[in-house]
Amino acid sequence: MRIGLLGGTGDVGEGLALRWAFHSSHEVVVGSREANRARSKAAEYETELDSRGVEVTIEGTANADAAAGADVVVLSVPPDSVVETIDDVADGLEAGAILVSPAVAMERDDAGLHYAPPPAGSVVQAAAAAAPAAVPVVGAYHNLAADRLANLDVELAFDTPVVGDDPDAIATVRALTEDVDGLRALPAGGLANAPEVESLAPLLINVAMHNEGFHDLGVRFE
Amino acid sequence: MRIGLLGGTGDVGEGLALRWAFHSSHEVVVGSREANRARSKAAEYETELDSRGVEVTIEGTANADAAAGADVVVLSVPPDSVVETIDDVADGLEAGAILVSPAVAMERDDAGLHYAPPPAGSVVQAAAAAAPAAVPVVGAYHNLAADRLANLDVELAFDTPVVGDDPDAIATVRALTEDVDGLRALPAGGLANAPEVESLAPLLINVAMHNEGFHDLGVRFE
Repeated sequence: MRIGLLGGTGDVGEGLALRWAFHSSHEVVVGSREANRARSKAAEYETELDSRGVEVTIEGTANADAAAGADVVVLSVPPDSVVETIDDVADGLEAGAILVSPAVAMERDDAGLHYAPPPAGSVVQAAAAAAPAAVPVVGAYHNLAADRLANLDVELAFDTPVVGDDPDAIATVRALTEDVDGLRALPAGGLANAPEVESLAPLLINVAMHNEGFHDLGVRFE
Repeated sequence: MRIGLLGGTGDVGEGLALRWAFHSSHEVVVGSREANRARSKAAEYETELDSRGVEVTIEGTANADAAAGADVVVLSVPPDSVVETIDDVADGLEAGAILVSPAVAMERDDAGLHYAPPPAGSVVQAAAAAAPAAVPVVGAYHNLAADRLANLDVELAFDTPVVGDDPDAIATVRALTEDVDGLRALPAGGLANAPEVESLAPLLINVAMHNEGFHDLGVRFE
């Protein structure tokens, strides 16, 4: 499968790129608003993988080119850029492509991080409203511990809830997620259930902030 | 410590009563709007504990009597009854008593459960606004898997985030929580962070609904 990681130079994008390239044979394409930056990060990822004996080519290119031809397009961009990014790449999306939204809109104050979704109810729902009608949107990866994801020395043991209204798209994202050793994808229902899934991200940050020795927390449902 | 479990005949109340009586030497008082119902459930809990070799007296009484004299008062009542219950018992609260709010306001539709907090932002914050000024309110136990909590055959391995603005009250609730084998209390900041903590309850229900073999889910932060 060809996976386009838009904003693939950022923290979650980096972790997903490295993990898919390391644990699976999926083709990873790193996108960025600046093609040069994407190329330079993709070369970094290749070097990191090569140091672990994984020889693989990771393409780095502009977001629109990373999205074109991809089976799955991950919108690993800041929450405020999700809709704009979809608008930028929509024309080039494959028929049958799936968009994945991991972004969470949060506000920070002295107490901690607070879930602050857009008027659509959640970033995933805003993405679904902006996406072409034929392109299903799935919410996932909101709660992945980015630093540990990007550190291939770390053995993962994390869950990620997955929401979406298209069962086939959910199944594809679920399988793709579980191609990464130690990640478990747990369907949490339709897009209407996205706010509770996205809310997990600020909760994890708040718990990490208030417990010594905790950093970059993940979650397991048991 | 004397723990008053208001609404201690309900599911989370039952689990907490049994676990504290089983794993600790705290004095457990079960409250209910109907004293007779509290007495009958308290007798049930005693029988259950006795069958496991734990001989203990559990008092059952009206909520106001369960709250009076208690060091910690758990508001294990439905979310819509929290403020009314505080009003009913406020006059009899000890100086230095701590209120604990585990209730979560949710709405159900075809997609699942949705977090639907009161205008205060969360049930915990509504409870804090209703409580006497000298009585700190702590949010905890929102995400405990009630059936497993109440089944003493089940070995627990759950986390519960704890929020509150009074560090001493947090410390007391934390210690009390960890007197139960297998429960870990994780501070998640002040009351302003309560919405993300309460949101975990509908998320757990949604995940359980959409994954075969999952029921009465708990969570671990790792």
